[in-house]
Amino acid sequence: MKSEPSHFGDRLIAAIRAKKNPVLVGLDPRAENIPRGLIAGEGMEATAGGFALFCRGVIDAVAPLVPAVKPQAAFFEQLGPAGMRALKETIDYAASKGLLIILDGKRNDIGSTAQGYAEAYLGCGAASAWGCDALTVSPYLGDDSLTPFVETAQKQAAGIFVLVKTSNSGGKRFQDLVADGKPLYRHVAEYVESLAAATAGPGGYGCVGAVVGATYPEQLAELRQAMPHTMFLIPGFGAQGGTAKDCAAAFDNQGLGAIVNNSRGIIFAHARPEYRDKFGAGHWQAAVEAATREMIGQLKSETSAGRL
Amino acid sequence: MKSEPSHFGDRLIAAIRAKKNPVLVGLDPRAENIPRGLIAGEGMEATAGGFALFCRGVIDAVAPLVPAVKPQAAFFEQLGPAGMRALKETIDYAASKGLLIILDGKRNDIGSTAQGYAEAYLGCGAASAWGCDALTVSPYLGDDSLTPFVETAQKQAAGIFVLVKTSNSGGKRFQDLVADGKPLYRHVAEYVESLAAATAGPGGYGCVGAVVGATYPEQLAELRQAMPHTMFLIPGFGAQGGTAKDCAAAFDNQGLGAIVNNSRGIIFAHARPEYRDKFGAGHWQAAVEAATREMIGQLKSETSAGRL
Repeated sequence: MKSEPSHFGDRLIAAIRAKKNPVLVGLDPRAENIPRGLIAGEGMEATAGGFALFCRGVIDAVAPLVPAVKPQAAFFEQLGPAGMRALKETIDYAASKGLLIILDGKRNDIGSTAQGYAEAYLGCGAASAWGCDALTVSPYLGDDSLTPFVETAQKQAAGIFVLVKTSNSGGKRFQDLVADGKPLYRHVAEYVESLAAATAGPGGYGCVGAVVGATYPEQLAELRQAMPHTMFLIPGFGAQGGTAKDCAAAFDNQGLGAIVNNSRGIIFAHARPEYRDKFGAGHWQAAVEAATREMIGQLKSETSAGRL
Repeated sequence: MKSEPSHFGDRLIAAIRAKKNPVLVGLDPRAENIPRGLIAGEGMEATAGGFALFCRGVIDAVAPLVPAVKPQAAFFEQLGPAGMRALKETIDYAASKGLLIILDGKRNDIGSTAQGYAEAYLGCGAASAWGCDALTVSPYLGDDSLTPFVETAQKQAAGIFVLVKTSNSGGKRFQDLVADGKPLYRHVAEYVESLAAATAGPGGYGCVGAVVGATYPEQLAELRQAMPHTMFLIPGFGAQGGTAKDCAAAFDNQGLGAIVNNSRGIIFAHARPEYRDKFGAGHWQAAVEAATREMIGQLKSETSAGRL
């Protein structure tokens, strides 16, 4: 911990530079998809144990390769308190392997409740109950709902990623409504950029980032221009259809400014046709590693991340 | 369970009619506010134990009086896995006392992740991992993000309350932006009403409700007109400044259509000046009961809930 940067934007940049790629591995365990044999028995306790074991295996495969992982809270919450223990074990194991942890919880609320969420999640290691480096946050509740997250993030050298333009097709119903000459997501983007600029570290990026889907490459380009201090978390790569080329405009000319998430395409690579035959079911971790290396290669050849 | 209605809107109406009032007690435990002596020791385990004990005490005091409770997920999440066990204990205890449980989690995500949240929370008793009757949901991710919640709610005789017009002042930054001649919250309201109408039960209300703050009485009136099939969950009463009179327009002429939440004003009533002297610290549950009765009385005299 000695000379680690004390600012989330800089910590993320350091992690990206150390691994020379911006790949974020999404930890989305699902009972029906994880390799056979990892879940021993029936019920939520057994399934949660299998989730923890599976995530540990994924982390072992990807920790030498990527800067960060993104556990998806929903899949752990689905298993009740046992699932929450598995989430905590997964976070702690990822941290022990030197990975940054961005929890995908899409939390938010008002006043002291928002403060509660911020204190619950923001702060690695023992600095918060869950020990995460960053959390995804929903913007509908407005500016004062984001304040406790921003203040806590600054205090804890942690970060938040606010939903701006999400990767699903139904996101446009509200996000694309035009008010005062621009879509809602641009209003959210401007407010997020103001927070990012106000919290920018020496590396130029703030502790407030934005979620922008790979499935909207034009908006990625437009938002990169409009949000120079904002780190992007890009979902939608792979299974949802986004490609490395689609993400290219999200990066700055140093290959920084974005992390690209892939969940199913990496963690369930053993079931993808192109890997299924190459790696038997007993070698699922080798498939995870191969899929991670493939994505790293794609981003390096199609985006400025090749300069890292 | 024999003749219980199999639709959330009707279950909520039945519970309101049985108790003859629409008061929702918010369970927002905070270590600094709960009565001395309930937290035995230091650390998250001890605090979580105190939270469970405190919520049990609140539930004992209010279960004979009100139809439902609303645990606030953030305060339990703040204590890590131990807090989540306390949340589950609280939910189970409230259910054992015949209360409906609306979890305030403001969750949402896309596709199978939204499905994960829906399956985690929607369904009382053993029908879901957490056993809730309803969940609060954030709308920013759009229509397809709500679909899994609506479908699961219908299947489980459960409900959701979607954020429409929140009680905080900063909510207006995005919610009040005007697109196509009306504010964003009206766009959300129209979509929510369409879901409520499509899922309406025999009692006329759907399994999809809306969160509308007591701090915006004009909007409450406007939205009641625009959303005839939508049950309202009204935060902002009491500590946030909303009064019974402010909530009046949210009710239909049978005294139905809304439940009004009060958290701090009820659960920490022992610290309110008007109760502090009347009830000593050792009688905090009597203060909870008195504050609940006071709020019931206010709603009965100032709104059509008096007709229940």
